[in-house]
Amino acid sequence: MLRFLTAGESHGPQLTVIIEGIPANLYLTGEAISKELFKRQGGYGRGRRMQIEKDTVEIMSGVRHGYTLGSPVTLVVTNDDHKHWLNIMGVAPIEESAQANMKRVITKPRPGHADLVGGMKYNHRDLRNVLERSSARETAARVAVGAVCRILLDQLDIEVISRVKSIGGVKDKGVYTIDEIKAKNDSNDVRVVDDAVAQQMRDCIDEAKKAGDSIGGEVEVTALNVPAGLGSYVHYDRKLDGRIAQSVVSINAFKGVSFGAGFNMADMPGSEVQDPIAYNGEGYTRLSNHLGGFEGGMTNGMPIVVNAVMKPIPTLYKPLQSVDIETKAVYQASIERSDSCAVPAASIVCEHAVAFELTRVILEEFQSNYMEQLIEQMTVYRARVKAF
Amino acid sequence: MLRFLTAGESHGPQLTVIIEGIPANLYLTGEAISKELFKRQGGYGRGRRMQIEKDTVEIMSGVRHGYTLGSPVTLVVTNDDHKHWLNIMGVAPIEESAQANMKRVITKPRPGHADLVGGMKYNHRDLRNVLERSSARETAARVAVGAVCRILLDQLDIEVISRVKSIGGVKDKGVYTIDEIKAKNDSNDVRVVDDAVAQQMRDCIDEAKKAGDSIGGEVEVTALNVPAGLGSYVHYDRKLDGRIAQSVVSINAFKGVSFGAGFNMADMPGSEVQDPIAYNGEGYTRLSNHLGGFEGGMTNGMPIVVNAVMKPIPTLYKPLQSVDIETKAVYQASIERSDSCAVPAASIVCEHAVAFELTRVILEEFQSNYMEQLIEQMTVYRARVKAF
Amino acid sequence: MLRFLTAGESHGPQLTVIIEGIPANLYLTGEAISKELFKRQGGYGRGRRMQIEKDTVEIMSGVRHGYTLGSPVTLVVTNDDHKHWLNIMGVAPIEESAQANMKRVITKPRPGHADLVGGMKYNHRDLRNVLERSSARETAARVAVGAVCRILLDQLDIEVISRVKSIGGVKDKGVYTIDEIKAKNDSNDVRVVDDAVAQQMRDCIDEAKKAGDSIGGEVEVTALNVPAGLGSYVHYDRKLDGRIAQSVVSINAFKGVSFGAGFNMADMPGSEVQDPIAYNGEGYTRLSNHLGGFEGGMTNGMPIVVNAVMKPIPTLYKPLQSVDIETKAVYQASIERSDSCAVPAASIVCEHAVAFELTRVILEEFQSNYMEQLIEQMTVYRARVKAF
Amino acid sequence: MLRFLTAGESHGPQLTVIIEGIPANLYLTGEAISKELFKRQGGYGRGRRMQIEKDTVEIMSGVRHGYTLGSPVTLVVTNDDHKHWLNIMGVAPIEESAQANMKRVITKPRPGHADLVGGMKYNHRDLRNVLERSSARETAARVAVGAVCRILLDQLDIEVISRVKSIGGVKDKGVYTIDEIKAKNDSNDVRVVDDAVAQQMRDCIDEAKKAGDSIGGEVEVTALNVPAGLGSYVHYDRKLDGRIAQSVVSINAFKGVSFGAGFNMADMPGSEVQDPIAYNGEGYTRLSNHLGGFEGGMTNGMPIVVNAVMKPIPTLYKPLQSVDIETKAVYQASIERSDSCAVPAASIVCEHAVAFELTRVILEEFQSNYMEQLIEQMTVYRARVKAF
Repeated sequence: MLRFLTAGESHGPQLTVIIEGIPANLYLTGEAISKELFKRQGGYGRGRRMQIEKDTVEIMSGVRHGYTLGSPVTLVVTNDDHKHWLNIMGVAPIEESAQANMKRVITKPRPGHADLVGGMKYNHRDLRNVLERSSARETAARVAVGAVCRILLDQLDIEVISRVKSIGGVKDKGVYTIDEIKAKNDSNDVRVVDDAVAQQMRDCIDEAKKAGDSIGGEVEVTALNVPAGLGSYVHYDRKLDGRIAQSVVSINAFKGVSFGAGFNMADMPGSEVQDPIAYNGEGYTRLSNHLGGFEGGMTNGMPIVVNAVMKPIPTLYKPLQSVDIETKAVYQASIERSDSCAVPAASIVCEHAVAFELTRVILEEFQSNYMEQLIEQMTVYRARVKAF
Repeated sequence: MLRFLTAGESHGPQLTVIIEGIPANLYLTGEAISKELFKRQGGYGRGRRMQIEKDTVEIMSGVRHGYTLGSPVTLVVTNDDHKHWLNIMGVAPIEESAQANMKRVITKPRPGHADLVGGMKYNHRDLRNVLERSSARETAARVAVGAVCRILLDQLDIEVISRVKSIGGVKDKGVYTIDEIKAKNDSNDVRVVDDAVAQQMRDCIDEAKKAGDSIGGEVEVTALNVPAGLGSYVHYDRKLDGRIAQSVVSINAFKGVSFGAGFNMADMPGSEVQDPIAYNGEGYTRLSNHLGGFEGGMTNGMPIVVNAVMKPIPTLYKPLQSVDIETKAVYQASIERSDSCAVPAASIVCEHAVAFELTRVILEEFQSNYMEQLIEQMTVYRARVKAF
Repeated sequence: MLRFLTAGESHGPQLTVIIEGIPANLYLTGEAISKELFKRQGGYGRGRRMQIEKDTVEIMSGVRHGYTLGSPVTLVVTNDDHKHWLNIMGVAPIEESAQANMKRVITKPRPGHADLVGGMKYNHRDLRNVLERSSARETAARVAVGAVCRILLDQLDIEVISRVKSIGGVKDKGVYTIDEIKAKNDSNDVRVVDDAVAQQMRDCIDEAKKAGDSIGGEVEVTALNVPAGLGSYVHYDRKLDGRIAQSVVSINAFKGVSFGAGFNMADMPGSEVQDPIAYNGEGYTRLSNHLGGFEGGMTNGMPIVVNAVMKPIPTLYKPLQSVDIETKAVYQASIERSDSCAVPAASIVCEHAVAFELTRVILEEFQSNYMEQLIEQMTVYRARVKAF
Repeated sequence: MLRFLTAGESHGPQLTVIIEGIPANLYLTGEAISKELFKRQGGYGRGRRMQIEKDTVEIMSGVRHGYTLGSPVTLVVTNDDHKHWLNIMGVAPIEESAQANMKRVITKPRPGHADLVGGMKYNHRDLRNVLERSSARETAARVAVGAVCRILLDQLDIEVISRVKSIGGVKDKGVYTIDEIKAKNDSNDVRVVDDAVAQQMRDCIDEAKKAGDSIGGEVEVTALNVPAGLGSYVHYDRKLDGRIAQSVVSINAFKGVSFGAGFNMADMPGSEVQDPIAYNGEGYTRLSNHLGGFEGGMTNGMPIVVNAVMKPIPTLYKPLQSVDIETKAVYQASIERSDSCAVPAASIVCEHAVAFELTRVILEEFQSNYMEQLIEQMTVYRARVKAF
């Protein structure tokens, strides 16, 4: 069983992740994980902070001479900026008198953020105590977990890729092959396949920025070569699409998720939606993939296609009405520095959330004390599924 | 902590549910639960089976003289039809020779169902062994669980309602007050607010039926008077919207879920999406509800709005290509009897899935050994949140 | 992953169990499960109730024509006696006026039982609301779960047996072979190997009975042919001995558990405690088994030996001081009918708790969608462990 | 819900712990946690390593200016010695050719350790890959978790203490008041109350050391002022004594656990075992505490008394037979440096394991977003239990 905990505040000393359940003998380096984190930091429309700091992952346990031991893996992303925040975000106690001053107390919650509700729940009257953890900074930890999973999935010839389908209303409506997507998504600062659309998106981002506004968009994650039969229909909480839905919606700013043709299925007749079954001598296949690779909560051997929507980042230059929690006075919430669009980065996070859920279900269902065992079992299983 | 297991095959002796974690002293009767199950069985477009059988819930544990004991609650829905299926779905062993004959072996998987993949996973060559459990019959058990939760939520003045927003492409685009929704959803066989649209939907269902086809749609679930601060941003798996997403997507035929303005947020500027914060002397509120009641994975005190899409039922009169698993011969899958549209019923199931997740998080976060304690805590908490 | 929920009150309509995670294609009948329940009901020193009623398990889901489907298995033990308790333990609401009378309110908690604390926790002023669920009747459900597990383990050539080692101070100090234990434990009404000791125990039970007292004892569970390497040292909650400890201590009246030489290890030098490793050409073995089959929280291939202590049943003819929760008056708690010793039955329950934990860890670590797959994997694994 | 993951190898860069679920606004410093770790490192009979290195805990997340934020708490214990182990335990990949040499491959498993079985399970032919994680070094992480819990429990006036009852057969048979225990346990290098017995134990340890042997013992943990009603009888896995049993047995080298009179209950009549109930105007109490504070798997308001046995450390100077996994040759396992007795330290670990389980159940059952809320709820609850 794979599980993880993440920890760390946005301006705290470090992000920390412990992952428990990774098989022994997986080749794993901090560099390979960092590479995925760099991808998350890119993307047209990010503020300057992203470009300055390069998140680097250090492995602190569970790996010896490049190979996992089977014991819990610790990943650390040190926050170089923390030294400038010691007064405000220091761990150690400070004198009462100094406290109010040093903490730069935040009493003005930003609409669309966790600030106000988090304050209510945990009784924090300094809302920094909320926003430091609710910050999208945490998605770096999620990517780090997913990166380990992707490296593992790679050994099973399973690939997880993502692309951006729309930003701020500009849509890439093309239908692409996997190769077309792979040719563009990682080489393109909006992670979009159609170059003309990509440029329109950049323009749209620029406009939003100029207007002091922000924009969201839609991303698509595709998982390739996933064997049929992961997940199960026998109990609701074993359905893999449901688990992926939870993981995706739990990413900061994600407000919806769907599979295959998604919400369009509301408008399509059943005879067009269901994917006809064929047999090609090599095994079973489907003649289309409207269902996005899932039947009965289980993978059906077709590519898994996950669509997800990210709302515009709620941190705006343009003022939004809010209320000071101390004075109860209405004010116009605005900030000085922000990303105007984080959709390309979010597609990376989404990709890694899906990679985690795929890895989790595989390690749950296959004997997987060490990589060779898992690989062998997967080979046997794939052959059997073909021969069914 | 609230948890449950459901069990039962479509033509087996009974559906069984055990719910663990319900506080003591909740007034609970089989009749009240059955009432919710009746709703699930209604709806324009259901086949005859639904109209004949009325699911009745019997409580077999955890309740004494009408009040819960704090111990696990068992719910049973007896399947009166099982007696006609004894040969095919009997529990007891039968003689090898009789087996093939008695079982009416199914070797033709239906596209869009769990049949083929379930067979591969569990090595069932008689696909009835799959479809009896993967059947949407199980949603009756989910409704039974949710019904108990609704009865509990009712004691906390929390209400969960649902309506149908679109069927087969016909959309009810109106924006309605809660009262308008409540005036129509339960009195209307398509659970739609606009009467003219409702009639168009019925026509659409009739057409699909005539064409031997099926249609899906979109439903909306709204939860009212939910206190701010349920769920948490501190760890991804504690975000309540993520949990609801899992629960909803794990309902049979559900392929997507979103919150508030949902996928439309991809097209909206941030300044329009975020809900401005106001204070009315009585507490905090939001001037709009595009985020559907969630900020940072926590409820923010506004109505929770969940949208979900149901694909058309995959059981069609119109033939779909498939492959016989024994002969590998291509055939045209078709059936004799089916619903053409189950969206109204599905809205009921969705409503109960949401009710479960709300109850689960409340029982997780509040001291709740018995109802009076829970109610008192909720009162104190609500006052505190207002006074923040 | 194997999990279960049990439900049911002592005088309620039925005990219900749902087990989720049993592989498909396990041959399973109600009779085979009932056989284990009968064993639990036997034993010298049980009251009359045990001898009259024979618990019979009916399978209500998850099995078709004698074989499991992979879907959740429901087991029901109907309580024939419930019809005599309808007034007192009926599920349906009754009129307020009738309530006090019909319920025969219990306000006198018995020392050593859950009565008083359960009342405090759940705010039950009629302590019957506690004792109906806290009753050892629930152990029948635990045995039913374990029986399914034993039947599965049997397919993997793993055997779980138990014996009584002491009752009321009378000890069977012999060191026996597995065959000697098996020759006696099931054929003997105190489940003791040494016949002379067995008779002393019966005498001791008779004496306790005459004195209106009760006695406890110590039991031993042995699991044979368990492969090395189940459980893991990598995280504390994956240690199998720890899990077994929880399962055993959670049996009614069990107050302690140990492995192998157990508490005697406090007095032994390390050079005598550790089991030397040998290699016999056929694989590794240990020259002794003081550690009871566990090293580092993992099975080491030797027989698993679990010792557990059961306190005397707290329901006594002999009066014990207690306090009426309404009047606060001191009174002498005593009852009219009870077992004086339940140790032989408890050894059966303990055996089944161990069987569950073994099965759970096996299904967690091995690919186990259906029995043939599990059996094959176990064969491969055993060969590999030998060849290490 | 409180949960944690620990990570780290014995000679790796650091131990890491993430604890999720600690309420906001708990005063928490690294120093306070380190203080508990120092206790673990003490004790007569430890080898030199323990005396040289002082484990120091650094908090890396979840705390700001001395107070918890409600977000996950990261604790790090840096291993200063790691720099001397870089060649052997470095995380980074090394060249294949250098590998065998640099790793100092271990092929000789030590009886009583996880070495051999861990190697089999994870397919490690260098057994260092096992022993680095299976090492009792991990108990430092367990103590760190428990230390946070103790600091929290302290705010609820709950105290957890421990003492040593026997070492190598030398027993402290005295019956002591809490004050007598507290006067001695922390001031005494064997953590024993009776000074004469303490000296016998030291002599016994010295003898074992001289003989190249090791000795184990028995410890007792007592938790004071725990409110009645924690845990529940309604489902087996909610029984708190069962959970404590798992936590204790999962400590390295612990082979058994019992509550109150423990295994002696096998020899006692029921009339002596059960603790009579009394009412003193101030609430309910028990006239004795043979059951160690548990009835029906719930705390009953009396002190919790946990007994546990630790086997002698399996690392001996005195040779034990084992087998080289490469040559299969028999050899005499022996080492150059080791503790001869770790029982005093183990009592500290046990104490912290119990503290964790108590805190976990409290945070599960009480509303506990922040400390003031938890404290207030506990006060209300305690008053209610008294007034029952």
